[in-house]
Amino acid sequence: MGKIDWKAEAKALKKQLKILRDAAAQDSGKKAKKPNPVSPLAPRGFPDLPVIAGASFAACEAGVRYAKRRDVTLVRLAPGTVIAGTFTKSATRSAAVRDCQAKLALKMPEDAGAAIVVNSGNANTFTGKAGDASVEAISAAAAEVLGIPASRVFTSSTGVIGEPLPHERITAKLPDLAATLSDSAIESSALAIMTTDTFPKGAAATIEGEGGEIRIAGIAKGSGMIAPDMATMLVYIFTDAKISQAQLQRIVSRHTDTTFNAITVDSDTSTSDTLLVAATGASPAAALKGPTLKAFETALAAVMRDLAHQVVRDGEGATKFVEIRVTRAASDADARRVALAIANSPLVKTAIAGEDPNWGRIVMAVGKSGAQADRDKLTIRFGDILVAEKGFIHPDYREKDGADYMRQQELIISVDLGLDRARRTMWTCDFTKRYIEINADYRS
Amino acid sequence: MGKIDWKAEAKALKKQLKILRDAAAQDSGKKAKKPNPVSPLAPRGFPDLPVIAGASFAACEAGVRYAKRRDVTLVRLAPGTVIAGTFTKSATRSAAVRDCQAKLALKMPEDAGAAIVVNSGNANTFTGKAGDASVEAISAAAAEVLGIPASRVFTSSTGVIGEPLPHERITAKLPDLAATLSDSAIESSALAIMTTDTFPKGAAATIEGEGGEIRIAGIAKGSGMIAPDMATMLVYIFTDAKISQAQLQRIVSRHTDTTFNAITVDSDTSTSDTLLVAATGASPAAALKGPTLKAFETALAAVMRDLAHQVVRDGEGATKFVEIRVTRAASDADARRVALAIANSPLVKTAIAGEDPNWGRIVMAVGKSGAQADRDKLTIRFGDILVAEKGFIHPDYREKDGADYMRQQELIISVDLGLDRARRTMWTCDFTKRYIEINADYRS
Repeated sequence: MGKIDWKAEAKALKKQLKILRDAAAQDSGKKAKKPNPVSPLAPRGFPDLPVIAGASFAACEAGVRYAKRRDVTLVRLAPGTVIAGTFTKSATRSAAVRDCQAKLALKMPEDAGAAIVVNSGNANTFTGKAGDASVEAISAAAAEVLGIPASRVFTSSTGVIGEPLPHERITAKLPDLAATLSDSAIESSALAIMTTDTFPKGAAATIEGEGGEIRIAGIAKGSGMIAPDMATMLVYIFTDAKISQAQLQRIVSRHTDTTFNAITVDSDTSTSDTLLVAATGASPAAALKGPTLKAFETALAAVMRDLAHQVVRDGEGATKFVEIRVTRAASDADARRVALAIANSPLVKTAIAGEDPNWGRIVMAVGKSGAQADRDKLTIRFGDILVAEKGFIHPDYREKDGADYMRQQELIISVDLGLDRARRTMWTCDFTKRYIEINADYRS
Repeated sequence: MGKIDWKAEAKALKKQLKILRDAAAQDSGKKAKKPNPVSPLAPRGFPDLPVIAGASFAACEAGVRYAKRRDVTLVRLAPGTVIAGTFTKSATRSAAVRDCQAKLALKMPEDAGAAIVVNSGNANTFTGKAGDASVEAISAAAAEVLGIPASRVFTSSTGVIGEPLPHERITAKLPDLAATLSDSAIESSALAIMTTDTFPKGAAATIEGEGGEIRIAGIAKGSGMIAPDMATMLVYIFTDAKISQAQLQRIVSRHTDTTFNAITVDSDTSTSDTLLVAATGASPAAALKGPTLKAFETALAAVMRDLAHQVVRDGEGATKFVEIRVTRAASDADARRVALAIANSPLVKTAIAGEDPNWGRIVMAVGKSGAQADRDKLTIRFGDILVAEKGFIHPDYREKDGADYMRQQELIISVDLGLDRARRTMWTCDFTKRYIEINADYRS
């Protein structure tokens, strides 16, 4: 691994950010006037992520679509690494997603090590057999450069749909990338996977294991199905924990539902959504079990939730971060249905954008969800404010209180169905003119 | 029935239209600047609707919410009238909808006649027991004025949710309304039921029955779940056909699925959607059977489709009328799923607004729909232009052709799944900044 010139690195990162913010504008030529400002809901900066022993990172400019921005990243994972994943359920999912799923199903021995290669700018989706060939070519090239089996190379692509991926631009860069791998370069990977994200996303956790620390560090990209016609949420989480593939997969699957599957920006599902979690086993701590396994699961779930929230906070045009809490539904499926109906309703989301305490639209969304509901048992709250209960507006509710609450940047909308014990929380953002601008106006 | 001064009527109608267009602006005070212009997709004018023997109409200003606009209409239906209906499936549906459903289930003898009372400005939804009492009060008052049983009075309310309906303003006007009933005043009813619709909606058909003409005339309102927080599609269709209630209900139910349930503006479902079809039996033609029954069904379905299309054409902020044709799906449910996923996708609808031939978003919507789909069997067309087939963009497709096509005001997007024989057509509109403006910015 090469030594890093941190000042140069910082300058490069800064430049990269600027280029990214200008990318949508560049791409759309004369039409685009306003560059994408950083989301008002963004965290204050990229967090300090701990080094994960056994994982090293590199990123470079390969010119897949845009000039002068890093668009390919390589992650090398040491021998012994186990990998778990969850993917989009889309029937038109991409060649890379199908390939990752097939490779995870192989249950290969882990002593060979592994790699992840991600490009932005082109999604390699709906590209026919050529798309499959591109995935194969990238896998083969990375395998050769790193000396690992091609079946241990996992790839993702994000960007325009329906254009052949110029994979030779990626494979040409792999030797350079392999030569510059660094265990401290995870932030440059977070930047290289961005498309029209307005900030790079990272989250971390550390727990005490038996005999040493166990670390978790993750990165993500995504802000809806993204402009100009870019898509996709991509998430990569790394840990040095010692854990079996089966255990890791079980934990990841269990918490996907309440994290990445509990967020929505525009109800549109990407063809390429990918979550990969890699455990290198390189921590000095003993293999996870009992309380340390429990603590690890809690920490990993927290990192997943944090990254999921950051995707919502970068929702296209978002100005509000909204938690939807549904309680006392008749069933888990009903709780999810109601939460999703509210979180995806254009009328609820435009009301939130307009800071309008329009609880009638919440009632509408509950009604249309298809879930069991009884008008006379329904309770609605904005934060702690009791708005309506028992089929009627609450006598103490004042529209002004609701309107004041709606001015906040972070909102909680609670719906209690009063039927049984099922509950569900989802996160969404508001729906602004900027979303339409980004998605209607920005394309060459 | 009083005699009509047509010149005065025309002037009143004109004034009414202007007031309606200003209504949203008035309501929202300083925030609203632009009045609602008539939709660019509106038909050239309100059609000449035939007189339906046995049906008479009146409308007036009752001040339910707005001053100086007609907001209540009364329809009297002669003895012998049979009534069929379909309603919103919302679990939080309004008191009036529940009442209509209960009354239709009664299967009352029809020799008493019937009435329909509709108000705009207040939806009487989520108004608890008071809402039920309002429906009862209006029904009782109309029954008394017209000398019919209260169980034959059908009511609808559309407007704000969650505010008690000042029903005494409506009942106070019923004697006046009854005194001014006219068989030629259906257009004034079409105007009185509008909320933020930008044009009144009407459609008609006439067929030759055995021994005379059979006429159908219908009116509708709706443009999505409507601003400021108004909702609802309301449809009333009148015919002088002689037909049994069971036959009429069967025909109405059969065609609701391919007309009013095949349109979407914003995926949000109103708590008050109501379709009532009344057959007075007053035509000189014989009772429908065989070929005349078939011809009637075809004509009624055409009127239903026409009104459904007009609702889409008045979709909030709409600038494009879009037909989504899905063919060769694996099942009827799958065909519907795919059509709805495309028709409701914010990304597809914003692309259409931007005149962007973004077929990648169509692929995305097919994928997310949950329907069976095979990338390598998928064919996509814009109008007659073959865009993509067999998992790849068609070699002859030129982006410029797609972009030229998208400039049209009326678009057809076809998706052939290549699996089996199920098909489904739906209609939608584009998704513009104006939609957000209407729904986010307009409220006091």
